[in-house]
Amino acid sequence: MMDAKPEQELFAYERLVADLSALVESGTLRAGDRIPSVRKLSEQRGVSIPTVLQAYRLLEARRVIGARPKSGFYVLPRVRTHLVEPGETLSSLGDPGEIATGDLIMRVIEMVANPDLIPIGTALPDPDFLPTGALGRLLGRAARRQTRRSVASVAPSGTPELRREIAIRAREAGAAVTADDVVVTCGCAEALTLSLRALTRPGDTVAVESPAYFGALQVLEVLGLKALEIPTDPGTGLRVEVLADALARGGVAAVMVTPNVHNPLGCVMPDERKVELVRLLAASGVPAVEDDTYGELYFGSARPRSLQAFDKAGLVLSCGSFSKTLAPGFRVGWTIPGRYRERIIHFKLATTAATAIIPQLALADYLASGGYDRHLARLRQTFRSTTDRLSDEISKRFPEGTRISRPAGGFLLWVQLPNGTDTVGLQRRAIRRGLSVAPGPAFSASGLYSNYMRINAGYSWSERTRYALDVLADLLKEGAR
Amino acid sequence: MMDAKPEQELFAYERLVADLSALVESGTLRAGDRIPSVRKLSEQRGVSIPTVLQAYRLLEARRVIGARPKSGFYVLPRVRTHLVEPGETLSSLGDPGEIATGDLIMRVIEMVANPDLIPIGTALPDPDFLPTGALGRLLGRAARRQTRRSVASVAPSGTPELRREIAIRAREAGAAVTADDVVVTCGCAEALTLSLRALTRPGDTVAVESPAYFGALQVLEVLGLKALEIPTDPGTGLRVEVLADALARGGVAAVMVTPNVHNPLGCVMPDERKVELVRLLAASGVPAVEDDTYGELYFGSARPRSLQAFDKAGLVLSCGSFSKTLAPGFRVGWTIPGRYRERIIHFKLATTAATAIIPQLALADYLASGGYDRHLARLRQTFRSTTDRLSDEISKRFPEGTRISRPAGGFLLWVQLPNGTDTVGLQRRAIRRGLSVAPGPAFSASGLYSNYMRINAGYSWSERTRYALDVLADLLKEGAR
Repeated sequence: MMDAKPEQELFAYERLVADLSALVESGTLRAGDRIPSVRKLSEQRGVSIPTVLQAYRLLEARRVIGARPKSGFYVLPRVRTHLVEPGETLSSLGDPGEIATGDLIMRVIEMVANPDLIPIGTALPDPDFLPTGALGRLLGRAARRQTRRSVASVAPSGTPELRREIAIRAREAGAAVTADDVVVTCGCAEALTLSLRALTRPGDTVAVESPAYFGALQVLEVLGLKALEIPTDPGTGLRVEVLADALARGGVAAVMVTPNVHNPLGCVMPDERKVELVRLLAASGVPAVEDDTYGELYFGSARPRSLQAFDKAGLVLSCGSFSKTLAPGFRVGWTIPGRYRERIIHFKLATTAATAIIPQLALADYLASGGYDRHLARLRQTFRSTTDRLSDEISKRFPEGTRISRPAGGFLLWVQLPNGTDTVGLQRRAIRRGLSVAPGPAFSASGLYSNYMRINAGYSWSERTRYALDVLADLLKEGAR
Repeated sequence: MMDAKPEQELFAYERLVADLSALVESGTLRAGDRIPSVRKLSEQRGVSIPTVLQAYRLLEARRVIGARPKSGFYVLPRVRTHLVEPGETLSSLGDPGEIATGDLIMRVIEMVANPDLIPIGTALPDPDFLPTGALGRLLGRAARRQTRRSVASVAPSGTPELRREIAIRAREAGAAVTADDVVVTCGCAEALTLSLRALTRPGDTVAVESPAYFGALQVLEVLGLKALEIPTDPGTGLRVEVLADALARGGVAAVMVTPNVHNPLGCVMPDERKVELVRLLAASGVPAVEDDTYGELYFGSARPRSLQAFDKAGLVLSCGSFSKTLAPGFRVGWTIPGRYRERIIHFKLATTAATAIIPQLALADYLASGGYDRHLARLRQTFRSTTDRLSDEISKRFPEGTRISRPAGGFLLWVQLPNGTDTVGLQRRAIRRGLSVAPGPAFSASGLYSNYMRINAGYSWSERTRYALDVLADLLKEGAR
């Protein structure tokens, strides 16, 4: 086990963050105000430049400040209601347990798959934002040009063309990988399943974020694994210092983590935290599955680095998919499993044998064409705007005391409702009004977050969205408490 | 537990079979000879007409006799070497155990996925026999006409169009099912995985055929299940009376069975046996997963009925795929899970979420066009001819004492080599010569069948096949014993 660093040293930059946040909260610093330069603050406070930089990056991740090129950092306009600490509900370490919320999660997942409901509870983007036409043409082209291969070929790791493109993008996130390291999967669900299966035996304990993506909790349940919930900061992600305590206790077989654009929190873990996390994994020999599904949907100025980018020990398996950025219907994802590749191929061969070829060929063509980066740039812009808009509209309608996450990417909002609100009850009543709702307890193995819900902001503002929010607001007023 | 029937009653028809087989073996009845009519033999032997019919059907399944329309039954030409009893290796019931051959199976599966090897050890048919062009055109058409749906839609159970076509075919096999009963999967591998997962918990015991399809054994291993090997007759399949003993002992959570065109034996279980098996399941309350992958590749005069067709208790989950008849690269299979549908959808959502849509759309179009039955008729004819040819060519080359199965469908031959032959050693040496080989022990959880191998007869006779058989014959002569 590694030695825990003294708390002062570990969180020096966090005290700076607290002080600057207080200046913004109190109104001393206002939207548009320039904040002191890194050098100046370093001199003023007698702390190192890296410490100040770390603090500014965290404030940027939390969208309290924003950078303007060659001009420094400015205070951003405030959303009325801010989520600071969903950790209010889980602030310390409990005991590992089975997934007590399996039935609820199942109901949520089935609801997500029901196309008749308004998808306010799903995590699927508006199909209008996806390059449907181009992908359709590429599917047709692949069917024409590579007919025999599309029909007959079977390779468990995926087509070389697509593995190459995935490796290129993983390298852009900082990981030194090649096409041979990539295993193409039937969506990210299979990537997570294979990765966790490769690291665990039934009955093992996996440390998970709290809140966590319910699909990952569902994978744990299917594999017969226990979950140990680790408090997760809405600005910086998994609390590495609490995880360190958990690993020191022993009995944790693997860690499941979403460093980049967390679902549902929307936060990006600062690089410094990623370094700490990877050091902790190396010191304890515990592997981690990284869910990087939303990693390319960052709102910041650059692609956040993957956790795998910092991993020298081959302990991080990095998973992703094209379901959020290109084509949910293709069911194509991947895992980059490092030293666990052979085991992954083993389980893949036994459980699905291979991934359908034709969608792989169309995706590889699309990625190789160079249009993907332009598409992603547009998509990030779009989601930034739809999440801002939806956040405003929620603020206008939801009860006093509602707080909303400020995502650093993606298109999901995590909404805290007044104490006593029962979002599972809300879900039941919302379904009758034609809405899918993702209630907070589905994001916790032990059913925490009963007054939270996740809201899909991946659609344009429309009459349908307005109707959905109005219905939710009505139900909340009627007393879904 | 049900009462075991007296052996005399249960196997009356089998004594008739033994007597008639002896007449053929001794040369008293010869190829082309007409055998007594059902009525006449019934009178001669003082047994009922159904008993004689049962015996004739079994002899037909074993390809000792064949029916000519309106003309009765005739003795078929004999292959030099016949497999009568692979049960020689396993004649009684052992104890359940973990899959001891996991590493070997893994090597075999990896080898199967290696396109550089001559596929004499695979179970994939010659792509030239598949309607590649038509499917390619339908893929292109689906991409053009249903672009948005192909890219965006996600339904865990599959597209309604394809589920409808699968249900129609299942009804032709005698099962009273509708589109709503079908769950489309990522190939038969996922169908078996989901079905077994729905029926078991890690550590449970599953009764399996011996020999069994190694892919199914691999699924058991991945799910942490134990296998109990049940002797399986090369003519009539799983020995139901031995399974009855096993179920009477208790501790069996599920049965895994391939009643129609067994892999590797090629046998079809007579309907009477299927009835007995289903009765046994109902009496003991133990569910069964039926692998019907090769069910439409029968050589007999009619589609053999599925086990599910006889099941009134909803205890049979029937799995299949289009990988052997249409498109291995599409990775589309299905399970018809009866009362376990909800659990199957649950596990499907958690592990792969859904199956890629575009291959489903192309397959549904192909099936709805009505061309599938014509294609299957041709394909059965082709495989009957390629398996006969390969059987002859093996007879000419392989050592004295070699015996070869007489498949009642499909395109696989199960070959028994002289005692002492080590087919695992043979596999190692054959790979160096560019051949994939499926050694016998991969078909057994406990590594039985060391002097057996499965040979793929799903290709046209060619220089490549000749080379492969010559290499195998050389290696056998050199002493792979």
